[in-house]
This record gives sequence, structure tokens and C-alpha cells, in this order.
Amino acid sequence: MSLYIEDIGKKAKLASKDIQGLSVKKRNEILIMITEELADSVVFIQTANQLDVEKARENQLTEAMIDRLIMNGSRIESMINGLKKMEAFKDPLGASVQSWTHENNMVISQVTVPLGVVGMIYESRPNVTVDVSGLCIKSGNCVILRGGSEAIHTNKALVDVIRKAIEKCGINPNIVQLVTETDREHVKALLQMNAYVDVIIPRGGRGLKKAVIRDASVPVIETGEGLCHTYVDESANLEMALKIILNAKTQRTGVCNAMETLLVHESMAETLLPLVDEALDQKGFEVRGCNLSMPYLKHGIKASEEDWATEYLDAILSIKVVKNLDEGIEHINQYGSGHSEAIVTSNYDYAEKFLNQVDAACVYVNASTRFTDGDVFGFGGEVGISTQKLHARGPMGLEALTSKKYIIRGNGQIRN
Amino acid sequence: MSLYIEDIGKKAKLASKDIQGLSVKKRNEILIMITEELADSVVFIQTANQLDVEKARENQLTEAMIDRLIMNGSRIESMINGLKKMEAFKDPLGASVQSWTHENNMVISQVTVPLGVVGMIYESRPNVTVDVSGLCIKSGNCVILRGGSEAIHTNKALVDVIRKAIEKCGINPNIVQLVTETDREHVKALLQMNAYVDVIIPRGGRGLKKAVIRDASVPVIETGEGLCHTYVDESANLEMALKIILNAKTQRTGVCNAMETLLVHESMAETLLPLVDEALDQKGFEVRGCNLSMPYLKHGIKASEEDWATEYLDAILSIKVVKNLDEGIEHINQYGSGHSEAIVTSNYDYAEKFLNQVDAACVYVNASTRFTDGDVFGFGGEVGISTQKLHARGPMGLEALTSKKYIIRGNGQIRN
Repeated sequence: MSLYIEDIGKKAKLASKDIQGLSVKKRNEILIMITEELADSVVFIQTANQLDVEKARENQLTEAMIDRLIMNGSRIESMINGLKKMEAFKDPLGASVQSWTHENNMVISQVTVPLGVVGMIYESRPNVTVDVSGLCIKSGNCVILRGGSEAIHTNKALVDVIRKAIEKCGINPNIVQLVTETDREHVKALLQMNAYVDVIIPRGGRGLKKAVIRDASVPVIETGEGLCHTYVDESANLEMALKIILNAKTQRTGVCNAMETLLVHESMAETLLPLVDEALDQKGFEVRGCNLSMPYLKHGIKASEEDWATEYLDAILSIKVVKNLDEGIEHINQYGSGHSEAIVTSNYDYAEKFLNQVDAACVYVNASTRFTDGDVFGFGGEVGISTQKLHARGPMGLEALTSKKYIIRGNGQIRN
Repeated sequence: MSLYIEDIGKKAKLASKDIQGLSVKKRNEILIMITEELADSVVFIQTANQLDVEKARENQLTEAMIDRLIMNGSRIESMINGLKKMEAFKDPLGASVQSWTHENNMVISQVTVPLGVVGMIYESRPNVTVDVSGLCIKSGNCVILRGGSEAIHTNKALVDVIRKAIEKCGINPNIVQLVTETDREHVKALLQMNAYVDVIIPRGGRGLKKAVIRDASVPVIETGEGLCHTYVDESANLEMALKIILNAKTQRTGVCNAMETLLVHESMAETLLPLVDEALDQKGFEVRGCNLSMPYLKHGIKASEEDWATEYLDAILSIKVVKNLDEGIEHINQYGSGHSEAIVTSNYDYAEKFLNQVDAACVYVNASTRFTDGDVFGFGGEVGISTQKLHARGPMGLEALTSKKYIIRGNGQIRN
């Protein structure tokens, strides 16, 4: 047990009483105060961010990784806009989910309440620090943030700004805390602190998530692994299929809702694949095909078994020709990560079968998998995209940060 | 990795496709077939049960433990009635939770779907085998059952009967499987088989649950630890308070929703405690009091710090006098297990404060904690009572065995 983490846990548990009692008006006031403090602290934040960026260059991180770290004016602006959207969103707390009168006249109501203390473990992008703090405040939760060591100076600065805003509203600043000691032993302690932490949400690469799931005794919500497929059925409109494929693969590559594997009905291979091959080659994408698709892929290289199990997050597409819808669904249920899956078809029965039998958080007919997103779905920000089946599945907004509680009003009832 | 468990997991995963596609009519047909097979197998089940009971006597288990094991005619009857109630219950699957049209005209619907494969780890009472199989079938899930070794013959017989009934309906019997090898290594393998198991539900004592939470990488729903309190406020009606206290403590003692600690406002101690003391003594209950309550407890013995943290599940009540409502709430939030908590009061503000600030699955005003029960709440049977905040909290019925899925119907939408 780490005394350092235990102290943070105790402070969060105490602070959770303070935030649970706040009206939505007061919670919104804190969000607005944070936007103001952020706007006033651009130089302070950028100075801290510079330290992280310099360190990253020293450590020879890739340009893509350095880009994720950078906190410039427009990114601060974008975090501020996110907080304003959360402020405008309706209160996720206190709603009565259901209510009924028992035959003995007790009134039983199920109401939404905060989870309590959220432990957030994430990598690089420091905007998560502000986004998740905002979502937790709006939903009446305390948050313990553990960002990556590569962004430590930026995260410290952002949390300083957030805590200052909370204090200015007269509220206990421990509703938002940052783990600044980045030793792994402290992370492990956080993952096992069931007495003070109600949920752990990991957000990052597969390695991070595996380690969290292995070590945690606190309940975990898995997020964001996206090995997504698009299946093009024999009845698909060719033009629509091509448009959806290109969007799902190329509109943005490093994101979890991008397509990684294209599945094509054998009767469509000859017409569709040369078009896909040509369009992707022009955009500088690599194509890896199965044996049956190779004849139609002028720029293709041969895919290996490993390709079907790989989330590239890169300018690469694997392609497999299948005999029929069943083989397509089977491939998806075997290799998919349960994130987002799409079919392109004109056949009603096939569309319904795909929707029913594909086991994923989001299943699409005739649309791009790129739509799986809390903002697009209208959830007022996003904690992450859950790929597990418990509690929350798919894009998680404010509602995913709430629990429920039964309140029972009686007048002397006892059980016979 | 245990090959034995991996084989069971693979079979369950395969069978989950079979049950997910079944109409509610067919799922109900299976439930009724099981009731018929159970009715025809009373001798077969009792013969198997006899082996477990004899072994239990050899091993000198307590009479209470042996009683839990016994599977007599009336208990089989009671399981049959439970299945009939499940059959009558409305389908928990396929409901649209919410549905809306995106500004780009995609229709997004969130629908209920089965969890997939449920791993149930439990002790003694073999009726759990039938109850949980029924609930899983009704909710379209496969179940892997791992009961206690002390009930292995009974559980084998019950699962034989269940599987025979499923086969008679023309369905893959692997939707219900029993782990018959009771080595602990197999349990550990089950807890970490994320590829095939969607949720683990432990049902039993604190030791079982701690071990499951420590070892599992599959998501777990914690159930049933009940360190419940009743707080009697200064404005309480004395007669009502006494009635509720006696019901919550004595109506049944070995259950998780029974009261373990009574908290009394200091101004009520002198009038209420002698009545409680006398009534409990007459029923043969032991009373353990704090320093302030001892003067009013003729039959009381001194409570230790450990008493506040103990779920007796027995004919013992600990009593603590508190200065005010805040001290009562603080005690509950510190020592309670988040199960069921009650206040007896005539004061509206205190009632609302207690409902809001006590952090538990079920919070009562002027009623006995004994009502926390899936059957009483009208949920058509009970998988267990969740004391965690994720996914399900409080009594878990069929709904707790479902997940959700977004289905998105488009006509060529791509993301800009």
C-alpha cells in the first residue's frame, strides 16, 4: 500500500461528500469559473507545456506523439468550449429512473446519483485532464487523475488552474486531484484502493488497458480499443460502399472508430476492390489482402493471420473476401474488439441479421463507423468509448458517470 | 490456463449464439420444460443430494450448513414455482431504451441485448443452480455454474435435468454448464477467461468475494454483503421504531438485509433501549452496546470497535448511541457495506437528508431493511443484491443480466 495514494484516496472520499450535495447551478458555476481561469492562464499553461515538449524531443518521441502533447492557444480554446457545452447540458443527477408503490404502500423510487470517486488513468493528450474533470464535476463526482509522465508538467499546470477555480467557488478543491508521483507502484495502489475509489477508467493503448485489468480490484470500465470492420454485401450500392469505406478508413486514421479490416462478399470483389486499391494508393495508404482479394489489388501486399487481429491506428487497411454474410459476421465476432461494425447492403434481411448477430457496442447499416463518438451522439462530451458490456457500452457521456440508488419511503412497514 | 475451463468457455461462447437468437416464446418453452423435468426427477435429485448430505455429516458441518444443502420435495417445488414466475415475466430483451434521429438523418437506437456468458460462483444452497439457470435462459444468456464442492452431487443432478430439458426443446444444452472439477486453479482460470466470459457474479461469504475480486480480470458484480443499520431519530415514533427494529433484526437473521447495528439518538436512549433490550433478550438475542448505551441495556455486553465492522448474520445486535443525525450518517457511511440502511423519524428534513447522504443501494425511511429483495421489489427472481455502484445496484433481476447496444440505420452517411 502506498501511503501517498492512500492520502489522495481519503481526501477524495471526503471531498465526494462536498460535491454530492451541490446543486446543478453550483456545479455549472464551477465549470464556468474553470473556463475563466483557463483563459487567464494561457501563458502559465504553455510555459509548463514547453517543458514536456522539450523533454519529448530529448527523448526522441515521434512527431505524432509530440503533436499529441502540445497545448497551444487553439487547443486551450477547444477545452474551454467543451466545458461550456457541459455547462449547457442537462443535469445527469437526481432524475427518477422508475418509481412505484408496493402493495404494502411503501413508495420505491430508483434515482440517479454520482458514482463517487472516479480514478482516470490515461496517456499523452493533456486535454483529457480538463475534459474528464469537467465531466466529473458536472456529474457530482470526485476524480483522481493519473496522466502519463510525458505530460506531467502540463497536467500539473492544468490541475492547478482547475483547483484554483474550484476554490474560488468556495468548494473543496480535492474534488479534482492529480497523482504527481508517477512511479508504477502508486498506480497499482490506486487500482486496488477499493475503500476510496468506485471505478477506474483507463484510456490509452492496449498495454495500459491490459495492465489495468490485470492489476485492478476496483471495478474497471474498459475503453477505446477499436478493431472495426466494414462488410460489403453482394447487394451493396457500389458508389455508397466506396464512399463509406474511404471515410471509415481515411478521414482520420489514429482513432478507435476507424476501420481496420474491410470484408467483401466474393461477388463484389472484382468490381469493388480495384477501386478501393486505387483510391487508397492515391492517398498513400497500404493495402494488405487475403489470397482471394490479391488478384484485384494492384498495390496490395499479402496479409498474414496477424493482420486480422491488428488495430493499426495507421494508414493501413487489411482486406478479406468472404463467401457470404455468415462468414463475415463470424470473422467480425472472432477478431473485432466489440467497438463499431458496419454493413453496406440493400438487402433488408441481411441488414437486420447483421444488426442482431454482430456483438459490438455500435452496429451500423450503410454508414461510416467514424460516427461512434460521444459528441456526435449528443452526450455532451465523452469519458471514453466502452467496449465492455457492463454498466456502459459505446460512447460514455455524463450518464456513464452516474450510479443509481433505491429510496424507499414508508410509514412503519415491516416484512411478514 | 486450464484446458478444461477453456473448453467450457469455448462451448459457452458458441452456445451463446444459439440462445441469443431465440424468441421469448422459445425461451419460455425451455423454462417450462425444465419445470416438467424437475417434477419428474425428484427421486433422482434426492438420491444425489443424499450423497452430499452424508458427506457433510462425515465432515461434521454445522446443522445450519447441512440444512442449506438439503434438497427435499418442498424445495424442489419452490424452484419449480420460481421458474414459472420467470416464465410469466416480461421479456427483458429487445426493448428500445432510447432512439433518436441524428441531424444527418441516421436513426440511432439503443436496445437491450443479453450479456453473453455469465460465470456464477456460489456456495452451498443448490437452489441457486436452478434459479440462476432460469434467469440466464430468460435473459438470453449462457451460464457457467461453479457451485461449492459440498453440493457437487446435487448440482450435477440438477444440471443434468436442466440440460435434458434444453435438449428436449431442440436447443444446444451448453447454454447451461457446470464446472464439475472443483480445484481452485479452475476457478482462477474461469475468472481470467476474458475471451469467453462477459461477467462473473460471486454469491457467498466475504472470503469468496474477496478472492474473486482479487483474482478476476473478467468484470465482476459484487453481491450480498450486508452490514445494515437502522437509525432512530429523536423525533421517531417509539412504537414504530421498536416494531421496525425487531423486524429488521429478528424476522430472519442469516440474511444480508437484516440489521446488524442499531444507532439511536441520545435523547431516545433512555426510553427506547430498555424496550429493545428486553424484547431481544426474550427472543434469545445477544445485545452489544457502546458505553453510552450500556446503562440502558440490562442484558447487554460491551461492544468493541470490531463490532461496528461485523456482519453477524446471527442473533446478535450491536447498539450505538449518537449525538445527532450527522454522527449517525457518518457511522453508516464508514462501517456500512452499502446494502440497506434505514431511518425512523417524523422529521421531514432529517428523512430527506438521510436519503440523500447515506451511500447505499437501498435507503429507507420508516420501514424495515428486510424489504431489499428482488422478489419483493417485483423483479421476477433475483441473481443477487449488488453492493457496488457499476452496472447494477441493489436487487438484481433479469434486467441486470442484460447489456445494451447501439444500432444505427443510415443510407450512406459519412463523417465530415
